[in-house]
Amino acid sequence: MSANVHFPPPRRILMGPGPSGAHPRVLRAMTEPLLGHLDPDFLRIMDSCREKLRAVLRTANRVTLATPGTGTSGMEAAVMNAVQPGDDVVVGVCGYFGGRIAEMAERAGGRVTRVEAPWGAPVDPEAVRRAIRERRARVVAIVHAETSTGVLQPVEPIAAAAREAGALTIVDCVTSLGGVPVETDRWGADIVYSATQKCLSAPPGAAPITVSDEAWQRISSREVPPNSWYLDLRLLEAYWDERRTYHHTAPISMVYALHEALSLVLEEGLEARWARHERNGRALQAGLEAMGLTLHAQPGYRLPVLTTVKVPEGIDEAAIRKGLLERYSIEVGGGLGELRGRVWRVGLMGEASTPGNVLYFLSAFGRLLREAGFRADIRAAREAAAAALAG
Amino acid sequence: MSANVHFPPPRRILMGPGPSGAHPRVLRAMTEPLLGHLDPDFLRIMDSCREKLRAVLRTANRVTLATPGTGTSGMEAAVMNAVQPGDDVVVGVCGYFGGRIAEMAERAGGRVTRVEAPWGAPVDPEAVRRAIRERRARVVAIVHAETSTGVLQPVEPIAAAAREAGALTIVDCVTSLGGVPVETDRWGADIVYSATQKCLSAPPGAAPITVSDEAWQRISSREVPPNSWYLDLRLLEAYWDERRTYHHTAPISMVYALHEALSLVLEEGLEARWARHERNGRALQAGLEAMGLTLHAQPGYRLPVLTTVKVPEGIDEAAIRKGLLERYSIEVGGGLGELRGRVWRVGLMGEASTPGNVLYFLSAFGRLLREAGFRADIRAAREAAAAALAG
Repeated sequence: MSANVHFPPPRRILMGPGPSGAHPRVLRAMTEPLLGHLDPDFLRIMDSCREKLRAVLRTANRVTLATPGTGTSGMEAAVMNAVQPGDDVVVGVCGYFGGRIAEMAERAGGRVTRVEAPWGAPVDPEAVRRAIRERRARVVAIVHAETSTGVLQPVEPIAAAAREAGALTIVDCVTSLGGVPVETDRWGADIVYSATQKCLSAPPGAAPITVSDEAWQRISSREVPPNSWYLDLRLLEAYWDERRTYHHTAPISMVYALHEALSLVLEEGLEARWARHERNGRALQAGLEAMGLTLHAQPGYRLPVLTTVKVPEGIDEAAIRKGLLERYSIEVGGGLGELRGRVWRVGLMGEASTPGNVLYFLSAFGRLLREAGFRADIRAAREAAAAALAG
Repeated sequence: MSANVHFPPPRRILMGPGPSGAHPRVLRAMTEPLLGHLDPDFLRIMDSCREKLRAVLRTANRVTLATPGTGTSGMEAAVMNAVQPGDDVVVGVCGYFGGRIAEMAERAGGRVTRVEAPWGAPVDPEAVRRAIRERRARVVAIVHAETSTGVLQPVEPIAAAAREAGALTIVDCVTSLGGVPVETDRWGADIVYSATQKCLSAPPGAAPITVSDEAWQRISSREVPPNSWYLDLRLLEAYWDERRTYHHTAPISMVYALHEALSLVLEEGLEARWARHERNGRALQAGLEAMGLTLHAQPGYRLPVLTTVKVPEGIDEAAIRKGLLERYSIEVGGGLGELRGRVWRVGLMGEASTPGNVLYFLSAFGRLLREAGFRADIRAAREAAAAALAG
């Protein structure tokens, strides 16, 4: 071990844009000895995962599984399989992750039209509808919860517009699943993917994904396979379904972790979990505003699970984050892309979404801001947050 | 939890083609709470991983990291980044995994020439040399330890032939790393990748990969980026090196596991670890032959970490595997591809490579074979194995 490595690592309160902390039951699940990836007992765990994924994703889709990689592998699987060379693709872009989808769609050979919105607002569904018509889009992609801006995107009108035009809809639910309502079937979304390390509170390393029958028909009748063999959904499904055709060695411990995390979500109940995230997120936001700070995302479209806060004039964004980490062992995120240095990103996801974290964070954050010269009203912040938590 | 799921899972002795069992220290490392993927303490663990990976891969290559997926993600990263559309690619194919590389190279736009050998023999380096010249190959790929056949492939003459012709060499060391000598720099190999769940005995979920300066120059001067964004080595390296540019959320717990597994390998010492695998593997093979069975791989090219045993006439291959699993909780593998139903694959990798497992397996296997009507000489098997272990 190198002299400067601290292992076991320090304890952190993970209130950044992800990962969030994992539940002890999830960590314990990963200590169970490995099974082979074709062991009947492991296959039963996969089947059970599939069932639980359908419940959490609110879908009856047969093709529902987890790709063997982090959330970005889910994004890449969705894009690479749905987009065929020459396809017109419309991507809603109002932040970093929409931009990432657009880049992936170009690498997959798509002709990409970006429908943009300022970073902090949602994409206008009407603008997407027009672009779908004009470009005769085959695929439409949108980010439900834009982790770079803290914006919650209305999905249903976009999925409806795509469906009318015969296009498939891909929805990125990396940051929303398990924290805010994700309604795959009610939305009429074709491909929905997520990640384990946000509101599901498992470690990063697997990406839930579900595919509608219509999308599956198109994917399974491709003449040219996707460029990726690793993330070829036809090959992945042939392992996850009853054929059990060897494709890759499943990340066994991650599947244990995902299974346990999904169990925890369903034990809490999706509606109760959404309500918890909503209450704690609104309390944090009320506290931040009462402290004298300005939220970045447009009112009415603010995610409860990820809040973007503007950095006040004259305050060193990175120094405050460093203070939070070093003095309070709290991690928050800085801005990504064009918001770099301009906002903090404060997550309340999964296990991290607790009243205690809201109040502790407001105190620590307020104190550091005061020391840096910003007149943070910590008492008002605490009172506003407490009132929201009680209400 | 579905009624038919057993969790915690049953204890297995994993003697298949991988995964092997993980060391308790590795499993314990995964229970440590998560850090953020940009936390200074996590970045130090990544740096330490990089150093240990260089030591285990026997290389001074700067670009040395782990891709965020199973071994197949390492294969895909190697192929997708090294092969550019229109490149001539020569792939040695003497088993399932060579064939998989060839398919990936085609999906990456390469014009692929397969240099084949029977499943059970190595590829002839002279035939590869001729193909490289005739095709003016830009990339050459070979599997060091062919997990489907149990064959150890000589790498050095192939890497030398590629180098003379100005081609890059990709070497698949998924099953060899940590079990038999992998000498990246001495071979003159350009891209070497592996997996965590074979002879390194961590769970599946990360793939060590290293890239020579020459290969890196070619990869970083590509005009068209690889089709995969997730496995784009330029983006991965920008996160693993001092730039720390956000790309994906690292699989935190898997990096802990990999770090601990590499520490265990280096504590044991590579040479001692190779000798252990050699001794136990040869003892198993001596025992199987003494029992009256026939090994499948060509003498002189047999892997100590994975042994292929021919299924005797009249014996039901799958029934024996089922008996091993259900009565003895031992997992072994069946044949893949053209060897399906014709061989068993018995692994002795990492933590599974012990004298106890050799002797226990021979007894259990012999007993099941006898019950099935094959006259296995169990006593001779045990004696031959014990003699080899003592020698």
